[in-house]
Amino acid sequence: MSLSAVFNPKSIAIVGASTKIGSVGNDIVKNLATQGYRGLIYPVNPKVDEIYGLKCYKDISDVPETVDLVVIAIPASFVPEVIPAAAAKGAKGVVVISAGFKETGNVELEHRLAEECRKHNIALIGPNCLGVINPAIYMNASFSVLMPKAGSVAFMSQSGALCTAILDYAVKLNIGFSKFASVGNKAETDEIALLKYLYTDKETKVVAMYVEDLKESGKFIEAAKKLTKSDNPKPIIILKSGRTSAGASASASHTGSLAGNDAAYDALFRQCGVIRASSVSQMFNLIQTFTSNPMPKGRRVAIVTNAGGPGVLTTDMAISCGLELAKLSPESIIQLKAVLPPSASLANPIDILGDAKADRYAEAIRIIGQDPNVDSVLIILTPQSMTQIEDTARIIIENKNSLHKPLIACFMGETTVVSGIAMMKSSNVTVTAFPEEAAEAMAVLTRFAEYRSEPEDEQFDFSDIHYKEVKKIFAEARTKGIKYFPEAEAAKILKLYNLPVLSFDVVKTSAEALTVAKKHSGKMVMKIVSKDIVHKSDVGGVMLGISPAEAGEKFDEMIRLIKKNCPKAAIDGVLMAEMVDRSKAVELILGQSKDPSLGAMLMVGLGGIYVELFKDVAFGLAPISKTEAYKMLSQIKAHKIIEGLRGQAKLDEDALIEAMGRLSKLVHDFPEIKELDINPLALFPDEQGAKVLDVRIIIE
Amino acid sequence: MSLSAVFNPKSIAIVGASTKIGSVGNDIVKNLATQGYRGLIYPVNPKVDEIYGLKCYKDISDVPETVDLVVIAIPASFVPEVIPAAAAKGAKGVVVISAGFKETGNVELEHRLAEECRKHNIALIGPNCLGVINPAIYMNASFSVLMPKAGSVAFMSQSGALCTAILDYAVKLNIGFSKFASVGNKAETDEIALLKYLYTDKETKVVAMYVEDLKESGKFIEAAKKLTKSDNPKPIIILKSGRTSAGASASASHTGSLAGNDAAYDALFRQCGVIRASSVSQMFNLIQTFTSNPMPKGRRVAIVTNAGGPGVLTTDMAISCGLELAKLSPESIIQLKAVLPPSASLANPIDILGDAKADRYAEAIRIIGQDPNVDSVLIILTPQSMTQIEDTARIIIENKNSLHKPLIACFMGETTVVSGIAMMKSSNVTVTAFPEEAAEAMAVLTRFAEYRSEPEDEQFDFSDIHYKEVKKIFAEARTKGIKYFPEAEAAKILKLYNLPVLSFDVVKTSAEALTVAKKHSGKMVMKIVSKDIVHKSDVGGVMLGISPAEAGEKFDEMIRLIKKNCPKAAIDGVLMAEMVDRSKAVELILGQSKDPSLGAMLMVGLGGIYVELFKDVAFGLAPISKTEAYKMLSQIKAHKIIEGLRGQAKLDEDALIEAMGRLSKLVHDFPEIKELDINPLALFPDEQGAKVLDVRIIIE
Repeated sequence: MSLSAVFNPKSIAIVGASTKIGSVGNDIVKNLATQGYRGLIYPVNPKVDEIYGLKCYKDISDVPETVDLVVIAIPASFVPEVIPAAAAKGAKGVVVISAGFKETGNVELEHRLAEECRKHNIALIGPNCLGVINPAIYMNASFSVLMPKAGSVAFMSQSGALCTAILDYAVKLNIGFSKFASVGNKAETDEIALLKYLYTDKETKVVAMYVEDLKESGKFIEAAKKLTKSDNPKPIIILKSGRTSAGASASASHTGSLAGNDAAYDALFRQCGVIRASSVSQMFNLIQTFTSNPMPKGRRVAIVTNAGGPGVLTTDMAISCGLELAKLSPESIIQLKAVLPPSASLANPIDILGDAKADRYAEAIRIIGQDPNVDSVLIILTPQSMTQIEDTARIIIENKNSLHKPLIACFMGETTVVSGIAMMKSSNVTVTAFPEEAAEAMAVLTRFAEYRSEPEDEQFDFSDIHYKEVKKIFAEARTKGIKYFPEAEAAKILKLYNLPVLSFDVVKTSAEALTVAKKHSGKMVMKIVSKDIVHKSDVGGVMLGISPAEAGEKFDEMIRLIKKNCPKAAIDGVLMAEMVDRSKAVELILGQSKDPSLGAMLMVGLGGIYVELFKDVAFGLAPISKTEAYKMLSQIKAHKIIEGLRGQAKLDEDALIEAMGRLSKLVHDFPEIKELDINPLALFPDEQGAKVLDVRIIIE
Repeated sequence: MSLSAVFNPKSIAIVGASTKIGSVGNDIVKNLATQGYRGLIYPVNPKVDEIYGLKCYKDISDVPETVDLVVIAIPASFVPEVIPAAAAKGAKGVVVISAGFKETGNVELEHRLAEECRKHNIALIGPNCLGVINPAIYMNASFSVLMPKAGSVAFMSQSGALCTAILDYAVKLNIGFSKFASVGNKAETDEIALLKYLYTDKETKVVAMYVEDLKESGKFIEAAKKLTKSDNPKPIIILKSGRTSAGASASASHTGSLAGNDAAYDALFRQCGVIRASSVSQMFNLIQTFTSNPMPKGRRVAIVTNAGGPGVLTTDMAISCGLELAKLSPESIIQLKAVLPPSASLANPIDILGDAKADRYAEAIRIIGQDPNVDSVLIILTPQSMTQIEDTARIIIENKNSLHKPLIACFMGETTVVSGIAMMKSSNVTVTAFPEEAAEAMAVLTRFAEYRSEPEDEQFDFSDIHYKEVKKIFAEARTKGIKYFPEAEAAKILKLYNLPVLSFDVVKTSAEALTVAKKHSGKMVMKIVSKDIVHKSDVGGVMLGISPAEAGEKFDEMIRLIKKNCPKAAIDGVLMAEMVDRSKAVELILGQSKDPSLGAMLMVGLGGIYVELFKDVAFGLAPISKTEAYKMLSQIKAHKIIEGLRGQAKLDEDALIEAMGRLSKLVHDFPEIKELDINPLALFPDEQGAKVLDVRIIIE
């Protein structure tokens, strides 16, 4: 199945073509017939002879020639049966506009539709969508009237209604599209399929998407990385809704899909270099920025302004988004001094003063363009009485390409400055409406450049894990109806993945306890083993600091206590392990959190009450790479403790990273794991490793 | 001195009027002469007879009549001498456009100018400014060519160049101004004076300001509260630059003023209900929102949309800004069900579907307007083929006033929707360019309504403090050249303000130590007292858990150790105090931070390594009220510990608040305190109070 028939058809049939003005089936024919599409158009409607001058066919089987693409806008229940007929006509793609599938509960009907398409090797867009547009061939196979100009941006949206708004904004913003699609319920063609297609699409340079949910994180990452990591990268900008739980539930009622936990999406996007837009407005700024700028070499931005206040506002935003103010080279300072008036500010932001004409902008841009200390340029203009708006726009347009550095301009205002803004936009200069937005967009471009320059992810080598043994344990548990694995059982599973669990024994008599105790030289800890007891220490089920000699009597004491406190609990024995000196360790929490769409995530954070208080945790989609584990750690504030805060010892970060990797592999290998918490994991200084001090697993 | 002559003059002289096109002195005369000002205009220039048809005078003393306002645009050094001549003509106000004062280092000249104005009872705007505009009387006494429309917004800016940009945006956004002023260096008229004037100005309903620095926080708070807390409030929206340190330094080079620490400004604004705009764009959205909406009664927002995706995006932003999605009443649900198609979403956001015409919007607005569970309304529209853009705009305009609830609309797009947007803007409906901005603005309006409904601040009663004794201590210290007050000395000072310091004695012999020990029943702590020793515990200068009987020998041991480890240190004795059981206490840090412009701030936060790691601290400008102390605590995450995290005991919050109040009073009463740290303050459970466990003070 290929999407090329969808986006570049030589002939299109519209099943459900209609003469009723304002209906979807009418709009689509009208858009195809009147907006310049040069391919063949076959309206299909049993009751009509002609629409917009086009001969209308009773049935798709009546169409005399081959049909590449079929657009369907008839009641949902009749849609699946169109597919074999379309296939018989040679169709390679269908776009199903009709609603009434999964989003209204008709899951089965949607499955049938997808199945028919797969069977006939037909690419399916939708159902429940607005349609697709390819401006380069003037094909508007949608019911949105606006035909955007052709360009290099592929826009794909899970919301059809948003598409019309995007097209409406795009005209004013002068954004051109390579491909435009409303993907609806994504019964077959989802974002992964689209990314694969757009990777090879020559017209597309930037991909922008509106997304409510994604699936199959592994495949998504692979598909996305092909674009973001290629030598000639195609940045992917995603506006993802459902950031808040209320937002997610609104989305669920909207498309019938479960929007995932937001942390999972942040992790997903980070793991494949996808740029997440924070708003519709920012998405447009980023689309502009990424389509018309080279990558910056670093974070050092220079700001040229004819107004002090806006220069400060721009600086504020630049710094708070992670950019750095470039420290101009001495040569630049000398050159600026020679061309600017004495009261101009030569420090960055470079204030060329309110009476600056175009020539002063030209000089400043030329000088900082040559400065090796400057990685990117922001130009701010306020309309003073001397300001030459169009001449300055021209200067920026002329110098932009020779700069070899990204440049974003903001001409502040919407009245006297409009001609300059229009000139720059039509010459591919990135222009934002407000100065803060320029800084923000440059910061995002810079972060993408940094992502691009990162080396390939370093992978873990886990050839020593015992996958089959764990599989067997879970299989047996399922047979027995066991779902909960308390510490001793859970630790066994972790050990099979070589996680640093304490070596322990489970003993059933005081004599066994004494035998085991002989293996230990230092103090021990004893814990009751019982599936019926969750809070062990509350009932006397935990004893610390036991010397080998007293192991026997302590065993008896614990059994007595438990029998008294929990007479009904089934006792499986007593766990004996070495007593860990926690005084030098820092306690972390490692666990799994599950996203309903994206699957298992690894969580790492500072343990104790601080997890709850500061929520200082990071997430990564399992399985993670070594590089990703390190990135997760660098996101949490507790990372400073791991690195050795205030002259304290550095902790064994390598051991932690290894543990994170192994745990992520475990939860990835076994999707039946519903909950898994290692709390705490004790992390020791220097190279003294880490120890799992408690763990529990629940499977489903 | 009154600013009414500045904003409502009957006659204006322009000293420095010029015939040179493009010069400031020419622009001002042209703007006054050609934009409709009906008062008398007297250009002053010794070399010219006439400008723009107006007779020109050689000297201001030649003007035949009284002059209310004098606008001055001549070289800086000649400006002060104009003032007596202006006064002689009866001037009550001057606007000094000329640059070359404080901002270029001529501080003395600026002082002279201000002094002259004060002497002659003349209100002074500037110097180094763009001028002032009063659109209601068509007075444009500035060198910006754009005359905005008259309205209810007073805009005041510390950046002149920003003013022209603001005027340029305002035309398109349809914002009208009551007063418009560029305040320049603020030699005399600063924000406090402006707020006092605008409080009484009948035309002004909303105040917006661009600010780089403020002074005299107490007076600012008083002046601002008059507006924000009055029965008919005037919201104050401030765009404050210098958020980041790099931003602050750019600002310093720009206006020659020291931009303050941002935390101080956040505290200042919070303490008087000032709304801080995060960007130029947000400032405009807030200006619109506050000028045309009633206050919401609560946080419960209803969203009406014809597009699911944008509904979710709006919800996301609403929730993350602190709004709540209204839960519609059962009556509303029934009514909506009756008028909306079956597939419409009746849950909030109310999705009236893509084929919604104006009538569906009308019904939805009417129904949620009557719903007592809805406090505010957001209307989202995307341009679908059936959408009635102008009719829907009309519906919104018609229903807006009868709603009695704030309403913000977003018609997404910039092409087909523009006519509807223009209609709404000219009918005082708040419209944002993007849906997220609508939610953001509504959240800010809601927060202001909440501020308005807060009761008056509860004040502390500190009649028991010993101000004079502390004054004496500092005076003596200054005489002796003492700047550093180590624990024992600092604790004495705190005690005079009744802060909960440990009772202690300083002993000089082992015999004294034994005598003092007799007063104690429990364990004691002993600490060396020496101005030469900072890290006491490193040199054996701290001993814990000493029983009364061993006090004498421990004294001798400590002295021996110190003499060995710090042979040159002057020993002032050994401090003896009860040993506090820290095990149940939580350790906090209380301290002072100083803002260069705004003065002393109190800081409170979680102590230990977590201060550094999580920066979980809050600031308040001293002196704070009881209410403010509580607000500060509610800002830090550690507040949950104070309230009793996870079933642990609630700590003695009242004692902490009392300590915060007393400390803020101390640092406010004594501006010579440069540094003060109570670290830690132990806070105990229930009503067991707080204890200062260590403290140091540095004065300057």
